Amino acid sequence: MIGRLNHIAIVVPDLQAAALLYSDTLGAVVSAPTSLEEHGVTVVFVDLDNTKIELLHPLGTNSPVAEFLLRNPTGGIHHVCYEVSDLISARDHLEKYGARIVGSRTPMIGAHGKPVIFLHPKDFCGTLIELEEADPV
Amino acid sequence: MIGRLNHIAIVVPDLQAAALLYSDTLGAVVSAPTSLEEHGVTVVFVDLDNTKIELLHPLGTNSPVAEFLLRNPTGGIHHVCYEVSDLISARDHLEKYGARIVGSRTPMIGAHGKPVIFLHPKDFCGTLIELEEADPV
Repeated sequence: MIGRLNHIAIVVPDLQAAALLYSDTLGAVVSAPTSLEEHGVTVVFVDLDNTKIELLHPLGTNSPVAEFLLRNPTGGIHHVCYEVSDLISARDHLEKYGARIVGSRTPMIGAHGKPVIFLHPKDFCGTLIELEEADPV
Repeated sequence: MIGRLNHIAIVVPDLQAAALLYSDTLGAVVSAPTSLEEHGVTVVFVDLDNTKIELLHPLGTNSPVAEFLLRNPTGGIHHVCYEVSDLISARDHLEKYGARIVGSRTPMIGAHGKPVIFLHPKDFCGTLIELEEADPV
């Protein structure tokens, strides 16, 4: 069911410093910061050869990553995102196995403009998992 | 400098349950458990289309992931591993930027039989980073 690893999301306390860390210290290609107001984050994309890292910083008053940063002031890995070909079918399969969806069962449109759901970390070895519907092949 | 994401390592409290979670619930291809005594872990490899997940469980009395599991009893993401083409050159570059190596500066042979070093999570936004020397192209 799960296909590619779409991205790893890392919440960071200082987006500019984190972008420099990945560009200069680690020598990766990073994007300019992009503010996604409807998702409550500003993001810098780090392009790797086979996937990407998303550096996230809270934006606005109701950011979904603000509490994580309070609990982890130096930052940390927030979630991983796997691609699936059919999100509704994947959700129904997962619920049959007892996996809990975080928030709404109805997929939302995620930061890449595609339907996403989130799976509860308590059901997945402490890992918050985002599932994103991949482009049709 | 950093190239491919080689793997994400997730420490889990029950390796058999975690392997079933990734195979049956998430529908991925998982390996049989492999005990790596010299690395103090038993590992199940989860093959994704573009990278892999390594599910780790402590093995023996001096496992490097035992303390992590005590602090995170439901499990959690332990580290990410990026490939570099020249590990010594990468290490020297990183040290010039003030990044700290966890443990020995001299690369060890990692779980895949290749030289590795680990970078301190405090220098990388709370993320423990393994660097592994990739096969020559």
